[in-house]
Amino acid sequence: MAFGWIDEQATARRRAGLVRTLRPRPADSPLLDLAGNDYLGLARHPEVTEAAAAAARTWGGGSTGSRLVTGTTDLHTELERELAAFCGFEAALVFSSGYAANLAAVTALAPHGSLIVSDAGNHASLIDGCRLARGTTQVVPHADADAVRKALGAHDGPAVVVSDTVFSVDGDAAPLAELARACREHGAGLVVDDAHGLGVLGDGGRGAPYAAGLAGAADVVATVTLSKSLGSQGGAVLGPARVVDHLVNTARTFIFDTGLAPAAAGAALAALRLLRREPHRAARVREAAAGLHARLTAAGLEAVRPDAAVVSVRAPSPEAAVGWAAACRAAGVAVGCFRPPSVPDGVSRLRLTARADLTREQLDRAVRVIVGVRP
Amino acid sequence: MAFGWIDEQATARRRAGLVRTLRPRPADSPLLDLAGNDYLGLARHPEVTEAAAAAARTWGGGSTGSRLVTGTTDLHTELERELAAFCGFEAALVFSSGYAANLAAVTALAPHGSLIVSDAGNHASLIDGCRLARGTTQVVPHADADAVRKALGAHDGPAVVVSDTVFSVDGDAAPLAELARACREHGAGLVVDDAHGLGVLGDGGRGAPYAAGLAGAADVVATVTLSKSLGSQGGAVLGPARVVDHLVNTARTFIFDTGLAPAAAGAALAALRLLRREPHRAARVREAAAGLHARLTAAGLEAVRPDAAVVSVRAPSPEAAVGWAAACRAAGVAVGCFRPPSVPDGVSRLRLTARADLTREQLDRAVRVIVGVRP
Ligand SMILES: Cc1ncc(COP(=O)(O)O)c(C=O)c1O
Ligand SMILES: Cc1ncc(COP(=O)(O)O)c(C=O)c1O
Repeated sequence: MAFGWIDEQATARRRAGLVRTLRPRPADSPLLDLAGNDYLGLARHPEVTEAAAAAARTWGGGSTGSRLVTGTTDLHTELERELAAFCGFEAALVFSSGYAANLAAVTALAPHGSLIVSDAGNHASLIDGCRLARGTTQVVPHADADAVRKALGAHDGPAVVVSDTVFSVDGDAAPLAELARACREHGAGLVVDDAHGLGVLGDGGRGAPYAAGLAGAADVVATVTLSKSLGSQGGAVLGPARVVDHLVNTARTFIFDTGLAPAAAGAALAALRLLRREPHRAARVREAAAGLHARLTAAGLEAVRPDAAVVSVRAPSPEAAVGWAAACRAAGVAVGCFRPPSVPDGVSRLRLTARADLTREQLDRAVRVIVGVRP
Repeated sequence: MAFGWIDEQATARRRAGLVRTLRPRPADSPLLDLAGNDYLGLARHPEVTEAAAAAARTWGGGSTGSRLVTGTTDLHTELERELAAFCGFEAALVFSSGYAANLAAVTALAPHGSLIVSDAGNHASLIDGCRLARGTTQVVPHADADAVRKALGAHDGPAVVVSDTVFSVDGDAAPLAELARACREHGAGLVVDDAHGLGVLGDGGRGAPYAAGLAGAADVVATVTLSKSLGSQGGAVLGPARVVDHLVNTARTFIFDTGLAPAAAGAALAALRLLRREPHRAARVREAAAGLHARLTAAGLEAVRPDAAVVSVRAPSPEAAVGWAAACRAAGVAVGCFRPPSVPDGVSRLRLTARADLTREQLDRAVRVIVGVRP
């Protein structure tokens, strides 16, 4: 029977303790949120939600078409201009999601005959981009600039190095300056996904490329998402104007996808302006993450030192991780739980996210709960 | 230099008359819109935009995480329940875009060793799904159920047939009933993209699978977008609960993507309720498309008889198509213009879209302009 094989996989998942289920949340959840990616606490900021509302009223519920047909409004252009200026790039192009932006950047910049050097810890959307691209992908060990250099040296022709700036599972940073050096030695392009860097790293949250002095360089392209620090939905590719122009002409997830909804564009733009006005939010989230890490390790847990907002804590097994997260939730604290196949190394962990608006009291309470119910 | 090869491609595009540029529109564009996909005229309906605004206020500017972490709200669940019920399927799963829904459906339902039989006219997102899937893809001639049957007969093991219900370029319909028969003869699954069918085809706009008596079948999966008839952004996969459960557990564009923004979910839900209350909107858009086609062919243009809302008109060349569309716009009518590489057969055309709220006067005016400035 069609789709019969699905049931076997479901059974195997159940046996392995790897079943995922959706847990809808109410609008007024009483949980202390250490699971979401609303790093700056802006998703529910009245300026952001009112901007979403105003954009829907002014522009409609949707953008009504591909960005190349009816889906580009003045609002999209404004967002692109301000995003590029803030992050220090020449131009920006907005997509319906960060996922779509990553698919676009990698596929459009890795043509037939080119080499893609991809970090083993990269996000699923970059990996899918590599798989869709016409170029050949070589996966290199995590955060290993020497391996990158070696891969580039062995290839003749166009090449790009692709990496998260902050890895989504462990929250550790890529060696951006070294990667850029390796790229320049070999005339390769550097494509970095700053999903977890924007709003958190760099002066006032301008992101990891800005912090590394790479923003605006002719050979550097960054992707960002509007769905984390900017509290909305959508993504963008930042880079030289000629690269953006190339994407407009060739990127399938740009050409064949409906433009970002006005409400999402409006919300992201309002969040960006808020961040520009209140640059301390970026430093605050880093402090909160450092504080979380310090308290957890002091209590004897094995946590990765955070380079941005994500704090990863090892769990002994997938089942233990699930039980741990459930116990935290029962005690009023929402935490993320990453298990295979969402983790590159097969190690299950709790994934905690800091927020700029977490109070010391909330941090203390969160740590008390997480430590108190450890497996 | 990195990205140097981009300039050569740009030059080649310029020479071939295939340069694409963004044309941002203002909120109060005076153009008569025959280019967007807002088939039911709901994107700017006050109930839809107020629902977007209310959802942003209640739930925030973004959903803050993957649907599996913090990104599922009660609003998402409500939308899924009502979408599934309306279209006649057991379950639904909402994505950040129709593109993401298609990537998910095809990749998750075509495992290693399986066969994907894909119509040559399928949308880019289905094609990318085929390329990402672990199964092997066989492309068959457009709308050719015999070719599908033959491909299925030559394969041993799981198989899916993948097709648009209404093809986005020419607006023609797939032979759904025949495809389903072919699938059933061989125990294959049928995955259909109803992006242009929802809201337009079937009783009260319930879509092409419903119209063909296929909705709710154990071996049929449909994808839809929330960005066309529902005037919002997002997509969904509709199918048996076990298929939806399988997607929750395995689809990368579900697991690793931020959930749809609340405003978009709210807008789509309001549009769906409006459509349920005003089912005549579906018939109206079909009448408008038929009227458009009749007038255009009466005036001697070569237009494809529309099976839904899209009316495609042949142009002699890419340059002529671009000039034609520009002349229409200059005369107050926005029309779509599809050129290589966005057309499977290399033939450039104007792409006109009907809307439920087009008046007879507007139709007459549009046709007068399109015919008057023909190349
Ligand atoms: C590193 C990284 N890149 C890209 C994405 C995708 O962005 P979006 O959710 O906006 O599609 C995510 C998370 O969702 C991410 O963690
Ligand atoms: C047939 C078809 N499928 C899928 C999509 C993608 O949907 P979305 O724009 O919501 O991502 C489109 C158009 O955009 C389409 O025409």
